[in-house]
Amino acid sequence: MNGAQALLRTLVDSGVDTCFMNPGTSEMHFVAALDTVTEMRPVLALFEGVASGAADGYARMTGRPASLLLHLGPGLANAGANLHNARRAASPVVAIVGDHATYHERFDAPLQSDIRSLASNFSGWYARPASVDELSAAAAEAVAAAYGPPGRVTTLVLPADVSWSEGAQVSAPAERDKLAKIDDATVEQSAAALRSGRPAAFLVGGPACRAELLGRIASLAAAAGARVISETLPARLERGGGRFEPERLAYLAEMAIAQLEGLEHLILVGAPPPVSFFAYPSKPSWLVPSGCHVHHLASGADDCSAGIDALGSLVAGVPGALPRPGGEPRPQAPQSGPLDSRTLGQAVAALLPDDAIVSDESISSGLAAFIGSASAGPHDWLTLSGGAIGQGLPLALGAAVACPDRRVLALQADGSAMYTPQALWSMAREGADVTVVVLSNRSYAILNMELRRVEASPGGDRARRMLDIGDPDIDFVAVAAGLGVPARRASDAGELSAALAESFATPGPSLIEADLHR
Amino acid sequence: MNGAQALLRTLVDSGVDTCFMNPGTSEMHFVAALDTVTEMRPVLALFEGVASGAADGYARMTGRPASLLLHLGPGLANAGANLHNARRAASPVVAIVGDHATYHERFDAPLQSDIRSLASNFSGWYARPASVDELSAAAAEAVAAAYGPPGRVTTLVLPADVSWSEGAQVSAPAERDKLAKIDDATVEQSAAALRSGRPAAFLVGGPACRAELLGRIASLAAAAGARVISETLPARLERGGGRFEPERLAYLAEMAIAQLEGLEHLILVGAPPPVSFFAYPSKPSWLVPSGCHVHHLASGADDCSAGIDALGSLVAGVPGALPRPGGEPRPQAPQSGPLDSRTLGQAVAALLPDDAIVSDESISSGLAAFIGSASAGPHDWLTLSGGAIGQGLPLALGAAVACPDRRVLALQADGSAMYTPQALWSMAREGADVTVVVLSNRSYAILNMELRRVEASPGGDRARRMLDIGDPDIDFVAVAAGLGVPARRASDAGELSAALAESFATPGPSLIEADLHR
Repeated sequence: MNGAQALLRTLVDSGVDTCFMNPGTSEMHFVAALDTVTEMRPVLALFEGVASGAADGYARMTGRPASLLLHLGPGLANAGANLHNARRAASPVVAIVGDHATYHERFDAPLQSDIRSLASNFSGWYARPASVDELSAAAAEAVAAAYGPPGRVTTLVLPADVSWSEGAQVSAPAERDKLAKIDDATVEQSAAALRSGRPAAFLVGGPACRAELLGRIASLAAAAGARVISETLPARLERGGGRFEPERLAYLAEMAIAQLEGLEHLILVGAPPPVSFFAYPSKPSWLVPSGCHVHHLASGADDCSAGIDALGSLVAGVPGALPRPGGEPRPQAPQSGPLDSRTLGQAVAALLPDDAIVSDESISSGLAAFIGSASAGPHDWLTLSGGAIGQGLPLALGAAVACPDRRVLALQADGSAMYTPQALWSMAREGADVTVVVLSNRSYAILNMELRRVEASPGGDRARRMLDIGDPDIDFVAVAAGLGVPARRASDAGELSAALAESFATPGPSLIEADLHR
Repeated sequence: MNGAQALLRTLVDSGVDTCFMNPGTSEMHFVAALDTVTEMRPVLALFEGVASGAADGYARMTGRPASLLLHLGPGLANAGANLHNARRAASPVVAIVGDHATYHERFDAPLQSDIRSLASNFSGWYARPASVDELSAAAAEAVAAAYGPPGRVTTLVLPADVSWSEGAQVSAPAERDKLAKIDDATVEQSAAALRSGRPAAFLVGGPACRAELLGRIASLAAAAGARVISETLPARLERGGGRFEPERLAYLAEMAIAQLEGLEHLILVGAPPPVSFFAYPSKPSWLVPSGCHVHHLASGADDCSAGIDALGSLVAGVPGALPRPGGEPRPQAPQSGPLDSRTLGQAVAALLPDDAIVSDESISSGLAAFIGSASAGPHDWLTLSGGAIGQGLPLALGAAVACPDRRVLALQADGSAMYTPQALWSMAREGADVTVVVLSNRSYAILNMELRRVEASPGGDRARRMLDIGDPDIDFVAVAAGLGVPARRASDAGELSAALAESFATPGPSLIEADLHR
């Protein structure tokens, strides 16, 4: 058994049975081993950022890491932006980076580079086994380390000769760390805050955005008269179907400040403290109101569930009626009228299939769809946790691979879509049940807003041209067709409703270019 | 004057007047300053790898750095693969990476990451000015450092508050390092090798692949009875039009070994010693024949030109007749027949316009085009110096921006084209005179060869499917049209000849999908 075969067997034995890959010469033994270890499902990507974003989506939906197969430093660099997002989402990912043979490194061949420095940007664990004897144990450790908690990206560098050498052994799964127990004093501090009767809120993120735990937090909050606010960009929010809907912290700092105003206690469960996404001149970065106490009840490394139970036992009040989502009743799908973010939101809210998964990289045009779909059936909402655009389509691919029985809807801004359009091809190859809606406004629209918010001069023609992606117009219907995904254009709200309904009813991927052009 | 304005002015004063960019919120003041410092030409890219590859192409053709504008760590990661290539090509590039405001860093907002670690992979110089007082001097240093010699990638991190702060000063250009003088003993060593009468060759790369210096080396080699071999992947080879054509070191190690067999002296001028691109089981990585002496006459940091003059004065013999390219006479363009790498080569050799620039990322299908076009008029041939695929289209864009009066031909493998297809959109926007020929064989064809060469098991269906990109077929005509580039398909050699002739005669970009499918 060679190293690659033992590596694949160890990964599968450790529960990692999917590999998103973009291989090169140094990974050929890994690729060849796919015919030996057939439990590993390989998914080819034409660009590494597709593979890494897909691994993130897969992890968010399964709680398990997928593996990546990448080609030396440049391949890892290409995967890097979406590994940054995976890091911020605390998604477990095992990145396997093929490298030159150990003895080849000293020759400084063209593709040689310092892989470790790259990996340190987004990776919480790194190893480069120097021989086949070390490989499988390192792989088992990489899987265990990826689980965390919290979940993280691990990087296992695989030198070509380690991959091809014979005499490899399979390693048993490695032991994983447990969630940390929250100490009593920490729980008591939050309990005292809730008992104080002063204005308080939970800020929930990570595991606390999953329905079961979020429901218990909501119940506790209702009993104590506290609010429940989700982080701005949750990795996975389970919602719809009458489940509790938290407030969502606004992206814009000035709106978030207004939202948090008056709070005297903010209890963090799986979320970091609220900070501005960017800095703005003469606006604060720290969004916690002056005088408000921040209570770090539980991070993603902690046993949030037990912590909430312990908190509940200390807080008086009847943890009775779960607050129901307020908001609007579920709308009808629009049959006509202009296509804008409002009617887009209505169409999505009306037509979203039960148990759908939404990959939301809608940036400036999707907020109404998020708000409206609180009234839809049960679904998961995945957001851009790390802020690095180019995640939406790969994330949708990975979610579809993870959950073949569910429909995935990618709400995709046009500018952001152009970072990883190659994901469409992998969707076509895998027959992934993804409905892509490209929100086509021919602009980096959010930057036109940000240009004003950062108090830059309004900009003349030269500046504005850098925020305009409408010259030439991108024809996403043509691009998708070229990559094997059936596509159509929707120019008014009725066309969008019809296209959504058709796509949701049709197996495999399809793309709708929603023409928001004014 | 704010920091961004002073930065742009400093760059322009230092001779950097082009910026390939993909900005975000933290770069808005830089973007706004484009309307103040109008000598800076901004070129928008939809993906950062397009910008970095274009900067490389620009540098190869002008000898001057372009600047890049990138958005935090993920933007730099996306640029990374082509910055790796730029590093290997010794191309000067000034990468400006917008970052959070200095005071915002401690809040660990979603896009925060360790930019320095990323930059260290490919960057030979790094600075992060902490205040507007330090900015312009750092920018002037970044430009000077980019020049080297040898040329390198420099990374200037631009915190948002440093960019927007008022009171900035413009800095004068910084002093650049000079080329190092080659010491007499080093020259004498190479002279003795040439005088020995034993089999000798120059291995030329970098600056020694430019026509004037290469011609002098060829003349000297002819006088001394030595061979002239170019490195496998020269950054810029000036050739055609009757200029001296060196042998080219083969990519395949076994062929390179045969090529070098019998040499007793190898004199390096601007090239590293010959090593195998990858390691292969039971094949050597070091390609220098046993017993052959390697003479490091000049690296890219040295004054190669003076070194060759000094060498010439020490070597007997008449440095008379410059060897003329042997090879075939210039072929006729094929008017019919199957389209394969041979007829592709004929068509390119026959039709290549004088003074064209060829961006060669043809991988497995383009060798005949390279060999054949030695008989064409004068032109530059740019190759994948760093080996990280996804460079070809961006490099062509950058070369076209650098040389608006010359036609650029991108010979582009289909698999590699899919890493940075967004370059097509920038070509359309800029009206760049680029002819893209996608060599469409629906396969990572080189990997099918490499799978055998690394002695991996031949692979079953699962392995082969990871090397096959024909399910679904990519329709590059549709993709190009969707990105604003007129495109057509060529299914036989006559169609290719006609399409090439039309494209060469038509301003602006166009794409030809050369259907090599069997």
